[in-house]
Amino acid sequence: MKYRIRVAFDGRDFSGYQFQPGRRTVQGELTKAAETLFGECSVTGCSRTDAGVHATGFVASIETVSGSVPADKLPLAMNSLLPEDIAVTDASVAPGGFHPRYDAKGKHYRYLISDSRLRDPLLRGRAWQIHTPLDVDLMNESAQILVGEHDFAAFCAAGAAVKSTVRTIFDIKVRREGGAVTVDVYGNGFLYNMVRIIVGTLVYVSQGKLTDDDIRKLLETGDRTAAGITAPPDGLYLAEVYY
Amino acid sequence: MKYRIRVAFDGRDFSGYQFQPGRRTVQGELTKAAETLFGECSVTGCSRTDAGVHATGFVASIETVSGSVPADKLPLAMNSLLPEDIAVTDASVAPGGFHPRYDAKGKHYRYLISDSRLRDPLLRGRAWQIHTPLDVDLMNESAQILVGEHDFAAFCAAGAAVKSTVRTIFDIKVRREGGAVTVDVYGNGFLYNMVRIIVGTLVYVSQGKLTDDDIRKLLETGDRTAAGITAPPDGLYLAEVYY
Repeated sequence: MKYRIRVAFDGRDFSGYQFQPGRRTVQGELTKAAETLFGECSVTGCSRTDAGVHATGFVASIETVSGSVPADKLPLAMNSLLPEDIAVTDASVAPGGFHPRYDAKGKHYRYLISDSRLRDPLLRGRAWQIHTPLDVDLMNESAQILVGEHDFAAFCAAGAAVKSTVRTIFDIKVRREGGAVTVDVYGNGFLYNMVRIIVGTLVYVSQGKLTDDDIRKLLETGDRTAAGITAPPDGLYLAEVYY
Repeated sequence: MKYRIRVAFDGRDFSGYQFQPGRRTVQGELTKAAETLFGECSVTGCSRTDAGVHATGFVASIETVSGSVPADKLPLAMNSLLPEDIAVTDASVAPGGFHPRYDAKGKHYRYLISDSRLRDPLLRGRAWQIHTPLDVDLMNESAQILVGEHDFAAFCAAGAAVKSTVRTIFDIKVRREGGAVTVDVYGNGFLYNMVRIIVGTLVYVSQGKLTDDDIRKLLETGDRTAAGITAPPDGLYLAEVYY
């Protein structure tokens, strides 16, 4: 039996999604819980996420050897076995061929920035805390240059081994919501650290360190060193995966 | 020199506000930072808060023996010395007679409840997670019975030694905001656990365990055992103190 599950987690105490021996990982915790529930099984995720990155809509599959429970009972059953910083929020039976990573047609990431002059202890580990006010309209305008199909080599962490660095961004929206700035990025796929480098670059635009022309050049040259810094993992949330 | 400071903290890793030997407390951390900055000094808070309770607008005073810094420099100076789960968000010079607790004319507490069927790991320690939907309108209506001057003996934790249990609640508002339910309580003073017992009682109303008549009787009889449970500290935020 194969299930598709939706997972939320607070990434602060995880060494990322992917299983690593001796480390506390999301995949490790999901697998322990699923094995208690189903016996032998395997858990596959929609993407690797870095240490400290959060999720409200991560998608994974659980493939069991023989165990099964009704899909509508699965979330509560898993949650009773999972630690408090991770929860299954939805489950359905998936076709045998379903693969959370290869079948994904797109993803929505949200990035949270707090730009109040003084730090907010309640956003510790939950947002990038920049202590100078951001120009949200300017960031949103510049972000539109990135929308569309482009070679995002300049927005990919060095050392990542991928065949192609061409990706399509469907939309980016930068806005102020409550006390914080949210950056919503929708795309068909993302290179390693791509959202965090996009956010770091847009912050540089707000700070006058990069212009729209610089961003256009980044897309042409693919020069990572000319882009903004990689925003910290604290503010990043995988919000939704589209199939 | 006496300063009035506004303080925000994430209460999860504190044994409450008040200094206790061998425990990590808000007063303890504020005092350590202030002594580094000013030398000998004393820190006084506007109220005790329980372990796990948060604040966005706690007020305290720092009285120094001889040290001083310009008030507008104080927040950044203190924050550079404070741990990440506590921050000074405002400071001003206060009259020598200022007392954060005795001078307070009122307080605003906010209580956060998540009533989605499945728990939200990102609200762990930040909200009371109830797994059945709440009737917010019903709760808000019943809450209005508590507004005004009443004897709140039934809404006070047993064993609290106070002269009078009469308090005035200026307003209570229960509403749904985003995914969570917020209960805002404004009053001239609060008994020990009063807000948490009010919230527990309103949740009982939503669950059909108490009626409006029961609430009226609580105010008449002062019978704590007939009120709702004490809501957990996780959802409580001291939002503002009025002088």
